[in-house]
Amino acid sequence: MWFDYATGDVISKLERLTVAYHESGHAVAGWFLEHTEPLLKVTIVPRGTAALGFAQYVPNENLLMTKEQLFDVTCMTLGGRAAEQELLGKISTGAQNDLEKVTKMTYAQVAVYGFSDKVGLLSFPQRDDAFEMTKPYSSKTGAIIDSEVREWVGKAYERTVQLIEEHKEHVAWIAELLLEKEVLHRKTWFKQGFQEEEDKASTDAKTIQDNNGSTPLEPEVLPA
Amino acid sequence: MWFDYATGDVISKLERLTVAYHESGHAVAGWFLEHTEPLLKVTIVPRGTAALGFAQYVPNENLLMTKEQLFDVTCMTLGGRAAEQELLGKISTGAQNDLEKVTKMTYAQVAVYGFSDKVGLLSFPQRDDAFEMTKPYSSKTGAIIDSEVREWVGKAYERTVQLIEEHKEHVAWIAELLLEKEVLHRKTWFKQGFQEEEDKASTDAKTIQDNNGSTPLEPEVLPA
Amino acid sequence: MWFDYATGDVISKLERLTVAYHESGHAVAGWFLEHTEPLLKVTIVPRGTAALGFAQYVPNENLLMTKEQLFDVTCMTLGGRAAEQELLGKISTGAQNDLEKVTKMTYAQVAVYGFSDKVGLLSFPQRDDAFEMTKPYSSKTGAIIDSEVREWVGKAYERTVQLIEEHKEHVAWIAELLLEKEVLHRKTWFKQGFQEEEDKASTDAKTIQDNNGSTPLEPEVLPA
Amino acid sequence: MWFDYATGDVISKLERLTVAYHESGHAVAGWFLEHTEPLLKVTIVPRGTAALGFAQYVPNENLLMTKEQLFDVTCMTLGGRAAEQELLGKISTGAQNDLEKVTKMTYAQVAVYGFSDKVGLLSFPQRDDAFEMTKPYSSKTGAIIDSEVREWVGKAYERTVQLIEEHKEHVAWIAELLLEKEVLHRKTWFKQGFQEEEDKASTDAKTIQDNNGSTPLEPEVLPA
Amino acid sequence: MWFDYATGDVISKLERLTVAYHESGHAVAGWFLEHTEPLLKVTIVPRGTAALGFAQYVPNENLLMTKEQLFDVTCMTLGGRAAEQELLGKISTGAQNDLEKVTKMTYAQVAVYGFSDKVGLLSFPQRDDAFEMTKPYSSKTGAIIDSEVREWVGKAYERTVQLIEEHKEHVAWIAELLLEKEVLHRKTWFKQGFQEEEDKASTDAKTIQDNNGSTPLEPEVLPA
Amino acid sequence: MWFDYATGDVISKLERLTVAYHESGHAVAGWFLEHTEPLLKVTIVPRGTAALGFAQYVPNENLLMTKEQLFDVTCMTLGGRAAEQELLGKISTGAQNDLEKVTKMTYAQVAVYGFSDKVGLLSFPQRDDAFEMTKPYSSKTGAIIDSEVREWVGKAYERTVQLIEEHKEHVAWIAELLLEKEVLHRKTWFKQGFQEEEDKASTDAKTIQDNNGSTPLEPEVLPA
Repeated sequence: MWFDYATGDVISKLERLTVAYHESGHAVAGWFLEHTEPLLKVTIVPRGTAALGFAQYVPNENLLMTKEQLFDVTCMTLGGRAAEQELLGKISTGAQNDLEKVTKMTYAQVAVYGFSDKVGLLSFPQRDDAFEMTKPYSSKTGAIIDSEVREWVGKAYERTVQLIEEHKEHVAWIAELLLEKEVLHRKTWFKQGFQEEEDKASTDAKTIQDNNGSTPLEPEVLPA
Repeated sequence: MWFDYATGDVISKLERLTVAYHESGHAVAGWFLEHTEPLLKVTIVPRGTAALGFAQYVPNENLLMTKEQLFDVTCMTLGGRAAEQELLGKISTGAQNDLEKVTKMTYAQVAVYGFSDKVGLLSFPQRDDAFEMTKPYSSKTGAIIDSEVREWVGKAYERTVQLIEEHKEHVAWIAELLLEKEVLHRKTWFKQGFQEEEDKASTDAKTIQDNNGSTPLEPEVLPA
Repeated sequence: MWFDYATGDVISKLERLTVAYHESGHAVAGWFLEHTEPLLKVTIVPRGTAALGFAQYVPNENLLMTKEQLFDVTCMTLGGRAAEQELLGKISTGAQNDLEKVTKMTYAQVAVYGFSDKVGLLSFPQRDDAFEMTKPYSSKTGAIIDSEVREWVGKAYERTVQLIEEHKEHVAWIAELLLEKEVLHRKTWFKQGFQEEEDKASTDAKTIQDNNGSTPLEPEVLPA
Repeated sequence: MWFDYATGDVISKLERLTVAYHESGHAVAGWFLEHTEPLLKVTIVPRGTAALGFAQYVPNENLLMTKEQLFDVTCMTLGGRAAEQELLGKISTGAQNDLEKVTKMTYAQVAVYGFSDKVGLLSFPQRDDAFEMTKPYSSKTGAIIDSEVREWVGKAYERTVQLIEEHKEHVAWIAELLLEKEVLHRKTWFKQGFQEEEDKASTDAKTIQDNNGSTPLEPEVLPA
Repeated sequence: MWFDYATGDVISKLERLTVAYHESGHAVAGWFLEHTEPLLKVTIVPRGTAALGFAQYVPNENLLMTKEQLFDVTCMTLGGRAAEQELLGKISTGAQNDLEKVTKMTYAQVAVYGFSDKVGLLSFPQRDDAFEMTKPYSSKTGAIIDSEVREWVGKAYERTVQLIEEHKEHVAWIAELLLEKEVLHRKTWFKQGFQEEEDKASTDAKTIQDNNGSTPLEPEVLPA
Repeated sequence: MWFDYATGDVISKLERLTVAYHESGHAVAGWFLEHTEPLLKVTIVPRGTAALGFAQYVPNENLLMTKEQLFDVTCMTLGGRAAEQELLGKISTGAQNDLEKVTKMTYAQVAVYGFSDKVGLLSFPQRDDAFEMTKPYSSKTGAIIDSEVREWVGKAYERTVQLIEEHKEHVAWIAELLLEKEVLHRKTWFKQGFQEEEDKASTDAKTIQDNNGSTPLEPEVLPA
């Protein structure tokens, strides 16, 4: 049993293990996805009253996001749950915050940014004013939007699970490192773990530079 | 007829019997389920104006809960109704509070924690602000969520009824003890009743230790 | 024509007749149902501005109610309408208050106490706070709940009509007595009318004792 | 053209004709229906800003109404529109107020007084408090209620049209008398017009007495 | 380009043309329909900030309107759009106000005045109080009402297009006169344009008299 | 990387490229569509906190808009997204504001201006008062409206994509010019780029004159 001196909470072994693999999943997904920035830091030191771990992202300064970039950000956000499932064989409530972000992000792509062929080039941004009583579209359109969102998140999770499977050793290695050191900075794992692989396969790897997502223009297969 | 000196209420024989078997159902379920903590205390002394009996749980200090843990907590909560049905052949309004907890817990698993394959990795936490006018999803998605919740609670009750059937003698024994002594502490029944069985089958039994649910990592068959 | 000196209302012959048979229906149903307390008093003297008659129940002190008990209370409440229909061949608006009670009681059994197999072990108690905007379940679940409620009330009414048919003579006899005396106490009809039958068939009859519904534990055929 | 000195409105010939036949329809229906009181007075003198004519009913002092009585009151209320249709071959907006009454009355029978077999013995009275946000039943039950109401009103109108057809001469005679005299009291047409028919067929006719609807108890064929 | 000295707006040639034909459509429809009053005046001088043209109606003093009269008023109101479509081959946003009137008028006929056989003799007037939360009928009834309204307006437009087609020359002649003179009074076109036709076919024409819609009583084929 | 001295934001190369092609799409669509005014100015200099680029339109002074004009305005507004898709092979969140405008414009055509045959000549303008609780039409009508809007926007986008394809070189040329000069006025590209083509094919080109959309009256194939 670990005792958290800050909050006085006692964290069970299982919880600590789950958090380490969860955060490692984010880190590895963020590293190997083409359109996302690598994480700056991951930790399993509890933060405040709710979060048991934490992953620090490069703040997104993009004003425009392409469909590909949003797809990869979705996958990185699902990386934690995917690591729990693939490496621990157990899923937990720990992904709730991630899923909430993914839900919002995907509704925006489908119903605000006009990325879905089935919904069409329509935009229904949520109105700012206090409360809206009825949705701006019919319940049938609502069902189409929901079904698109479900399908898109499903595809992103499929891709994430596959990525985590491919990089299983990296996930386990970083998780164990986290259990040992509790905090990891990007440079650590870059130097210690991924460098070799980077050297071997430098073409599809990511170098730490401010490329800001200005990736080349080849289209990809995405939900449409 | 019993007279409750605290509230002045008179409790009928049938009510007292029902309460004793109901609380005993919680105690036995909590004891034999893998992922739940044994109860601390059960009583058939009325508490306040509403509850005729009471089961005291080990406070849950987990910040993360796995799908398996939540399934077992659901079963323990349904243990009271299952005991009424299986041992008395009558169900009563006494489970209302338990069912309300189960309803909330299962909606959270299906629509907030992303545990259901049919609903997908989406999270729709209830908003804090005063009143929400419309649900954040279409009525079709609402029907899918409801049907998943109904199915999951159905499966948990099936498992609970089976567990209560298996341990029928324990339930009856503790219920009769409760009718006699009115209050039982964990140690009592541990020492008096379950020890033998524990000795016989120590593998699938639970020892009173702070294992905090850090169970081994074998996956189980659960609704998905 | 009768003139009510208290309210100044004139009550027609048909209204007086209807009220007498209606209240008699409650009294006879309450007497012969296994799980209900006999009425204390029935009267056809108008009470206040709305009610033309009145039936006084033994106050229910049970904190727990079994499914069987709630079924019988439903039947007793439907006894008035059943008597109008079976003995007068006419139904009237006089049962409105009874039907409102039955509606609430049955919704509680189906959607709050988890008594319906089709709805499952879910509990959706009505929230106390001022107004709820949306139902906590989908419209499809709402339709299932409604259909269960309709079916259960239908079964209860069927049973009530059958009971009133069996005891037609009692209903007529008490109704005529009411038209003559206007107020009847339990003891009156117990002594004058039902005693003989009681003597003949004491097994399935009800004796005036505080048995508080603590009936034996044989299960019955009920909607499930 | 007639000029209304009270309001300054000019009433066209067609409007005057329509009003006379409309009011006559109420009067004749009220006279020949078994369970309604004859009207006290009918007039085609405009009243206030909206109504072009007026029919004065015996105030209903019944606290209980049978299904038969409510059916006949519905027919009397539909008598105006039926007379417009059958005798003038034109329907007008003049029945709006009548239809509103009929709509409310029929919803009450179906959804409050438990008179409909399809809806069952359920009662959903409209709540008094300021605003209710959602209906107490599902949209499916709402559709059943609506369809019952539509069918019941249809049956009542069918019966009304048939009654107006049978008594076409009476309707025309009273309408012409109204155009001549503008106001008619019950006694007038009783003495002048219906007496003969009354004499011929006194069995199914109505005598002017305070029978208060206490009609004999033969059941009738009604929507159920 | 025309410059409107009052508002400072510049009106394009196309707009001026559209307005002239639109107003002429109202004038011609109002002239040849049996149950409507001829217009008093039409103009293409903009009025206020919104309307580019204007048609002045004889104020309706009828308190009762028959189904036939409301049908013809609907057609007159649709005359503007019909003229745009049939004579210019282009439809514009200029009919918005007319369509709003037609929408309200037709909903009233179908859901308030009981003119539709499919909806039945029911009346659901819009409640005056601030806001109503739910419709007084089910969504199924709402769909029936909507579909009736759509069908009725469709039939009225069909009739209007046919009328405008028949009187194409009159529409063009009045439109051109309007472009030249900007304002036309009823007498102008009565004397200059329609008189001949009136003389030829005086039977189905309309004479300028205060007949107030008191047309003979032959029934017509209308949506029912 | 470009640094925006006004806001301090850094804009990536990809973002700058996307904005240039997006704005160029608007400019080229506006130039070649028959019923729209050419743009006055386009720029890729960020404006305020949100917009990365900006296209300045000739203010619309028309009080009437034909269906053809609204269709072309829709296409011009979709020109930005079409250019992103056709020339960069990537779509971005940058079209959100355009899509919102298109959504509103198309709902108005279908549900307010009566341009859709499927919805009919009905008008449901959004009410000004604070909040409306329910839609003025049934959910079935809502689904018809939504499906029409989706189809219409789909057709407009198809037309826009085809137009952008035809004028691919113009789009690329203006986009590159924008990346170089950051701001372009109408005269610039008129003189430098389109003149030749104009000279060659003066019939289907647009001359810079205040024709205010007063195009000839030939009908076109549009959604109806």
